[in-house]
Amino acid sequence: MSAIRPRLYIQEVATRDGFQNEARFIETDDKVALIDRLSACGFAKIEVTSFTSPRAIPALRDAEAVMHRIVRAPGVVYTVLVPNVRGAERALSCDVDEVNLVMSVSESHNRANLRMGREESFAQLRDVIEVVSKTRVAINVSLSTAFGCPMEGDVPEDDVLGWVARFAELGVHGVTLCDTTGMAYPNQVRQLAQRTRAQFAQLETTLHFHNTRGMALANTMAALDAGIDRFDASLGGLGGCPYAPGATGNVCTEELVHMLELNGYDTGVDLTQALEASAHLPGLIGHDVPSQLLKAGRRLDLHPAPEASEQRPPASAH
Amino acid sequence: MSAIRPRLYIQEVATRDGFQNEARFIETDDKVALIDRLSACGFAKIEVTSFTSPRAIPALRDAEAVMHRIVRAPGVVYTVLVPNVRGAERALSCDVDEVNLVMSVSESHNRANLRMGREESFAQLRDVIEVVSKTRVAINVSLSTAFGCPMEGDVPEDDVLGWVARFAELGVHGVTLCDTTGMAYPNQVRQLAQRTRAQFAQLETTLHFHNTRGMALANTMAALDAGIDRFDASLGGLGGCPYAPGATGNVCTEELVHMLELNGYDTGVDLTQALEASAHLPGLIGHDVPSQLLKAGRRLDLHPAPEASEQRPPASAH
Repeated sequence: MSAIRPRLYIQEVATRDGFQNEARFIETDDKVALIDRLSACGFAKIEVTSFTSPRAIPALRDAEAVMHRIVRAPGVVYTVLVPNVRGAERALSCDVDEVNLVMSVSESHNRANLRMGREESFAQLRDVIEVVSKTRVAINVSLSTAFGCPMEGDVPEDDVLGWVARFAELGVHGVTLCDTTGMAYPNQVRQLAQRTRAQFAQLETTLHFHNTRGMALANTMAALDAGIDRFDASLGGLGGCPYAPGATGNVCTEELVHMLELNGYDTGVDLTQALEASAHLPGLIGHDVPSQLLKAGRRLDLHPAPEASEQRPPASAH
Repeated sequence: MSAIRPRLYIQEVATRDGFQNEARFIETDDKVALIDRLSACGFAKIEVTSFTSPRAIPALRDAEAVMHRIVRAPGVVYTVLVPNVRGAERALSCDVDEVNLVMSVSESHNRANLRMGREESFAQLRDVIEVVSKTRVAINVSLSTAFGCPMEGDVPEDDVLGWVARFAELGVHGVTLCDTTGMAYPNQVRQLAQRTRAQFAQLETTLHFHNTRGMALANTMAALDAGIDRFDASLGGLGGCPYAPGATGNVCTEELVHMLELNGYDTGVDLTQALEASAHLPGLIGHDVPSQLLKAGRRLDLHPAPEASEQRPPASAH
């Protein structure tokens, strides 16, 4: 009965993808303390921060300080978002393990999100790859709107795979298929993931889901069917969606881990510690987080039976 | 390319399972108007109300008035919750299509929820079945805590199947496996659903999920794998969980339909009309509903590209 549980790799993005959406500046000390907590949780990778212009994303203007002050845990890959060569140089000066490059596979979203066309983005990222390839730092590329664009709608699979191919030719180590605004659905995920795995077996492939329309965990199950073993997630479900005010953002780390472990996978993540770290978030950011699991507890966090005297009338709950 | 889409059956429970959890009494006129809207949406079944004691559940004290005043749409099964022979007689006097009986498969939850032991519940429901079996009204039994009890933890599958067998022997037409407090996870769902289908092929089998821990849609996909074609859902995600204050309740109808239609199923439900009905709920109940889809819109409800002048700085969203 002691079957070996298949190993999955969970990559925590809250301090980058989550914090950059917060109105309140999270103090550098608090960022460092949180990342150090996350390092103890067992994540395969932590997206620490972003080396973008402090004017563009003031929330992450302390990228160097954060990178220098965190305590690196052995076995954890510390990755950072890098938009251009200047950002890459800053990141390399901090001895990061990986740089994560971003562009959208749809033209409209790339223009809205990065203020340039896709070819301009590609050229800029090619320059970054050229610089970073001379070092021992790994390179991942995150392809936004891989499951649909909020302005253009469906994105052809062949377009997505075409962009993967162009980056693969440049020698990137990994690719992340990003469901940027929660448009992915299970059958679509299964098929695109299967094709990506089949054509790019050499690439470390990550799926990055948002729970905007409630499907993030269903999409995760579909990705597992296709042999995907690596998922981005955000503690507490931090990270919003600019096209849906009030909507849930990234898939919630603790809910993802909770489901995967119940289904017999070894995520490497200590759920108790992750939940403790998540419980710490509302105080840090000044508002509630979307995590349902934080409210409800794990499925076997049991409740006492009510005393006969304090019982309500029969409720007929089912 | 015009493949026949597999047909699924969606059963709306918001006016019963949802409203009985609301602090505010929903006026009878409003209940009737909502149910008439739901009748036009294409649901296979609507759980209209509950013939419980008005003292126990004052929110549904107008059960007869509601049943008498709704306009029945052809093809829709109008079902009501019935706890005992007195309730069954009231329901039969309203010419319902089906009665839905409820008990828990775990002793502690049955006592907390219904204030009696399981054997006492079973005896009471057997009396109801005896009365209703003399009529043409269908009988469904909803088994609460089929995927875990918030007080006892795991419930053995054989116990669940044992209770299904006892009701099957009494001639019920359908059984609903209820994940009352959101403890179900996909592999568990697949297995219990497979066993239920295999052993009780003659029973109409419904799955009733709560999204308390975010897994409702993932569990739905697992149930489909096992051949289940019938699901309860609650408009807007109405319906809470008494053990997790603030937690999401029943799986949200519009999110369920949205995912299933994207995956190529014919749910029979008009999603546009369902979303319009859901948008009407917050005004009715006096608070926001958990539905993410109501906030975010359908995946292909597109957004205009931002004007160059109103663009924010590059956001690096992925």
